[in-house]
Amino acid sequence: MQSEAHPLDPLTPGEVSKAAEIVRPLFGGHGLNFRVITLKEPTKDELITYLESEHRGNRPQSTPRRCARVEILIKNRENRIDLLELLVDLESGSISEQQHLNGKHSYIDSAYMKDVEEACMSDANVQKEILTLDLPPEASVIIEPWAYATDGSNDMSRRITMCWFYLRLVEHPDANYYAYPLDLCAEVSEDLEVTKVYRLPSSAQEQIHNEPRPFDRQKVHSTETSEYHPDLRPYPRTSTKPYQVVQPEGPSFQIRGQQVIWEKWSFRVGFNYREGLTLHDIRYDDRSLFYRLSLAEMFVPYGDPRAPYPRKAAFDLGNDGAGINANNLQLGCDCLGTIKYFDGWHNTSAGLPLKLPNVVCLHEQDDGILWKHTNFRTGHAVVTRSRVLVLQTIITVSNYEYIFAFHFGQDASINYEVRATGILSTVPIALGDPKPPYGTIVAPGVLAPYHQHLFCLRIDAAVDGHKNSVVVEESQTMPIDHPDVHNPFGVGYQTHTSYIEKEGGFDLDMTKNRAFKIVNEAKINSMTQTPVGFKLLPSYSQMLLAHPSSFHSRRSEYGKHAVWVTKYREGEMFPSGRYTMQSMGGEGIASAIEKRAEDEKESGVRNEDVVVWHTFGSTHNPRIEDWPVMPCEKMVVGLKPVNFFASNPGLDVAPSTQEVNKSVLHDGEACC
Amino acid sequence: MQSEAHPLDPLTPGEVSKAAEIVRPLFGGHGLNFRVITLKEPTKDELITYLESEHRGNRPQSTPRRCARVEILIKNRENRIDLLELLVDLESGSISEQQHLNGKHSYIDSAYMKDVEEACMSDANVQKEILTLDLPPEASVIIEPWAYATDGSNDMSRRITMCWFYLRLVEHPDANYYAYPLDLCAEVSEDLEVTKVYRLPSSAQEQIHNEPRPFDRQKVHSTETSEYHPDLRPYPRTSTKPYQVVQPEGPSFQIRGQQVIWEKWSFRVGFNYREGLTLHDIRYDDRSLFYRLSLAEMFVPYGDPRAPYPRKAAFDLGNDGAGINANNLQLGCDCLGTIKYFDGWHNTSAGLPLKLPNVVCLHEQDDGILWKHTNFRTGHAVVTRSRVLVLQTIITVSNYEYIFAFHFGQDASINYEVRATGILSTVPIALGDPKPPYGTIVAPGVLAPYHQHLFCLRIDAAVDGHKNSVVVEESQTMPIDHPDVHNPFGVGYQTHTSYIEKEGGFDLDMTKNRAFKIVNEAKINSMTQTPVGFKLLPSYSQMLLAHPSSFHSRRSEYGKHAVWVTKYREGEMFPSGRYTMQSMGGEGIASAIEKRAEDEKESGVRNEDVVVWHTFGSTHNPRIEDWPVMPCEKMVVGLKPVNFFASNPGLDVAPSTQEVNKSVLHDGEACC
Repeated sequence: MQSEAHPLDPLTPGEVSKAAEIVRPLFGGHGLNFRVITLKEPTKDELITYLESEHRGNRPQSTPRRCARVEILIKNRENRIDLLELLVDLESGSISEQQHLNGKHSYIDSAYMKDVEEACMSDANVQKEILTLDLPPEASVIIEPWAYATDGSNDMSRRITMCWFYLRLVEHPDANYYAYPLDLCAEVSEDLEVTKVYRLPSSAQEQIHNEPRPFDRQKVHSTETSEYHPDLRPYPRTSTKPYQVVQPEGPSFQIRGQQVIWEKWSFRVGFNYREGLTLHDIRYDDRSLFYRLSLAEMFVPYGDPRAPYPRKAAFDLGNDGAGINANNLQLGCDCLGTIKYFDGWHNTSAGLPLKLPNVVCLHEQDDGILWKHTNFRTGHAVVTRSRVLVLQTIITVSNYEYIFAFHFGQDASINYEVRATGILSTVPIALGDPKPPYGTIVAPGVLAPYHQHLFCLRIDAAVDGHKNSVVVEESQTMPIDHPDVHNPFGVGYQTHTSYIEKEGGFDLDMTKNRAFKIVNEAKINSMTQTPVGFKLLPSYSQMLLAHPSSFHSRRSEYGKHAVWVTKYREGEMFPSGRYTMQSMGGEGIASAIEKRAEDEKESGVRNEDVVVWHTFGSTHNPRIEDWPVMPCEKMVVGLKPVNFFASNPGLDVAPSTQEVNKSVLHDGEACC
Repeated sequence: MQSEAHPLDPLTPGEVSKAAEIVRPLFGGHGLNFRVITLKEPTKDELITYLESEHRGNRPQSTPRRCARVEILIKNRENRIDLLELLVDLESGSISEQQHLNGKHSYIDSAYMKDVEEACMSDANVQKEILTLDLPPEASVIIEPWAYATDGSNDMSRRITMCWFYLRLVEHPDANYYAYPLDLCAEVSEDLEVTKVYRLPSSAQEQIHNEPRPFDRQKVHSTETSEYHPDLRPYPRTSTKPYQVVQPEGPSFQIRGQQVIWEKWSFRVGFNYREGLTLHDIRYDDRSLFYRLSLAEMFVPYGDPRAPYPRKAAFDLGNDGAGINANNLQLGCDCLGTIKYFDGWHNTSAGLPLKLPNVVCLHEQDDGILWKHTNFRTGHAVVTRSRVLVLQTIITVSNYEYIFAFHFGQDASINYEVRATGILSTVPIALGDPKPPYGTIVAPGVLAPYHQHLFCLRIDAAVDGHKNSVVVEESQTMPIDHPDVHNPFGVGYQTHTSYIEKEGGFDLDMTKNRAFKIVNEAKINSMTQTPVGFKLLPSYSQMLLAHPSSFHSRRSEYGKHAVWVTKYREGEMFPSGRYTMQSMGGEGIASAIEKRAEDEKESGVRNEDVVVWHTFGSTHNPRIEDWPVMPCEKMVVGLKPVNFFASNPGLDVAPSTQEVNKSVLHDGEACC
């Protein structure tokens, strides 16, 4: 079978089926559960050969074989569940690699989580404990199962789920039950047995306790500040008038399968269950910039020190999956203007293709002014507007939403914007209790614990080629009394640049205007005399607050530094390791770097195929304004050319005119 | 005369004339030159009384008197120019205060600068020096006069102007002459005499020199990368399709004179020659947030240490004026949608009213998603779009443009966005010379020196009243081995808050997630148990790089720290002093604070009327991509409520629907 697909295209539904068909006969009768059937991207060597040939306009001589990476669960002889990873060659129909992943766990299985919820709910002991809460008769109990964040207390070789209890007081399927966290939680085993039931601490000073304590009816409060669903709220404000985006000649983008062409940019859209949206082979004006851009991980550790809350720490990519949790985006809701949607394909547990509709949307936005100059001698102004191309995906991970968007600019910049929204995760607190130093009381009896959102953007650079280096540039005051330095008036400052020679983790320092640039030392900009490059515009963020000795820290690793630089390695995609579920630590980027540190050839990153990983995020100490649903908190990371081009790449954008833009003067008042 | 104007309205044209009429007879025959006729804002005491009564819906019992602040130049007996400041009571027709400002200089007079330019050009010595440059016959010389940035070399009691020389090679009034900086500069005295002519250093190692050196014809290069004006460029790209904003029911804002009402917000728009756009009496849902918001100063020091470049350091507000240099904004060019424009009024040197048309524009923008939640149990998504109200003003200061915009959000946040664009200031460099460590070579023979843009946003807070405090909050890892701290798993972190007790300058520290909050200690949020507050979301920036002993540093002062907290004082509006022109230093915010530091009553800022000043900006080490016109560099400062409200202030925004938004599906492909 010679595939028609581009080597970077996600698996087609037919390919998903085919992979399952190859695997199925080999593991029949073992309770076979397909967790993942996804594209095994070609090796970089293979793909570069292909892409270079493609970009030269030649028909590539050889096309990388289409392969699938398949994760399955099977029951072993002890009736326990084993995780296997297979590489399936879709062209030959053979399995080229097979790995038995002892002690590793697959990402969260929502069907299994539903089973956990039901098992927990029907457990006699749980029911007995619920009775002791003496809940209002009209209320129903909701159980929210969470993957267990390793805290060292249990045997991690089998799956454990934490069940958190909430109350639904209002009879509506979209009622916000996070407004009524209950003083109860349970641990459920892999075999769906409730192994423990706890009562939660109800004050800052308190530990887990055992005395039954009824639900305090005084916690019941008005829906006005607790509900977000329009059915449960007064009529919304009517002051916001309609605002529409009209593109009378259609959009400026062209879509060719998974390839996007827009304003001198070209790239390919990828999608998988874990990372969600990925971008590949990103070029501007036919020059290579990035081989691959992806959100590689995100970690949400909670800062409440009281047991069992240290078990709340979600790897939203590794444990949950940004692809599998991507929203089905709706026309006219999530974007304005002319929208192109991309579907994703995943698989059912039986190995059938599963469509994830509209998981990525693409549209243009106006972004204000791109550049302007008014000649003060003539009064003549020339102004251009900035158009950006936005690729957006939105994920829901239990209570929270994340909106991820790549913004491409006409000035050859890329901005990666993250918005955090959704509902705060809550825990109970006794009425009248003082605010603890690690949480905010957002409603009667409702504590929203402090937590962090730490993202890792993986930047697989290809700045004018694949051999790149990373430069650290700082702006420094010039000395005034140095014999070799001419700085008589003390106003001088200069940049100091140094190359990163070895893999490692690095910190930001805005007091030095420290900048990280990915450059190609073999390509010197003839005018500036410096290597062509792209600069990281970081999102200045606090790093992981959990103690270095904690499991949170050992498991996440990338949260220690803002910038990591590694040499490209096949399969090194995830900064906390591939299998984060109930991981014990030591599998992340810091450990990988440390292992290679002794070997100069292995650890050198000068004029190599480098990957830059940027850790950023927010220390989210909730405000009451984040309740009951949080207005978006925005974070932006940028990549912009530095001495890469010969001039402003947006110089040829046409000046902005009223003829085209058709703005409207308010109230017909005199103007101009 | 009982004025109909609101006390915060800028002077009407009639009031400008009236002020001049009152002043004119007193200084007739002294070469009277009106530099400024602007509103003297009422004292805060007066205004608060008025506003509180107004907001209660009462007819204010007493209206503050309309007063003008007038700056004039007159010739004294020695035929030298004196600067006077007068306070004119427009109701009584009297002068209530008069101050002779010995040794101070008024802001830049563009008519005078034109005279300087002409005097310089017609100077015989200058002409002789130009001849030695042996310029191409078709070229014309352009002189750009700059206010002299004090470097300690001259007597500062009289005005000095630096004249920089450029070449216009292309016969077009909007040709970019910054592409040909000439190896020449001149000093012009207050009396329009050329007192010195220099040749500029032409390499990194070189000082000012005296050997005549002809213009190197090899510097002449293609217009392709040097010109921005469409007349001088090939046809622009045609790939960008039209994009229009349609508001079928009109905008959501209401304008009542200078008052703006929009989505629970209300505020008043002010405007003056110096600060440009100012905002007053900013309220949300009828609660007071800020008394006054304004850009208080901006400083652009250059980092090239070689004389005479230390004289390049512009106070773009104090020396140039953000109001007087504001662009006349054009419908359909500077914004999309339905636009309301505000005019400004200034005065001619004869004291006649001078209209500055369309200096502020106001419009709405869509800003993506405001909040979203998908209930994973039901699959139901509720999503609202974020509408923002934008007040924008754009200034041109010689080569550069700045775009200043306040963005009001439905979540009760305010973002202040600054975009820097325009043309780099350039100096000559010899062809073939190595790149110096304090500049970027952007074109043949053209060096763009490193420089900083340091802005100061003045936040005169009134968070639920006028007595406020400033809290510094840090997020800190909890100890794991402290006997009194319960943190058994090492995951705990907590916030530590401390109040600023005394006026001072403070630094950011993102490693501690250090946050500055303006709170009202007398108003406790009953749910969170904390004072209601607003938090500064700073723009993380490098502070001033010039050596502390330099004039740049002594003159600017506010560039030392990112956050300054002072007690409100009448007239304390500018962090580098009111008269920055040729200032010698010691008149800024640091000096003011130091003078008051000993007196506890004077320097205390706890539960006082506090003002927060935020210094931010960019260390602008030019890229070649900033040439010949720079794509906007964006900086954003935010103010957002923290435990001020009872819940998300945008909770009642109506969900987003296709019915209202009318988005278009690309290519009619299947969706939903």
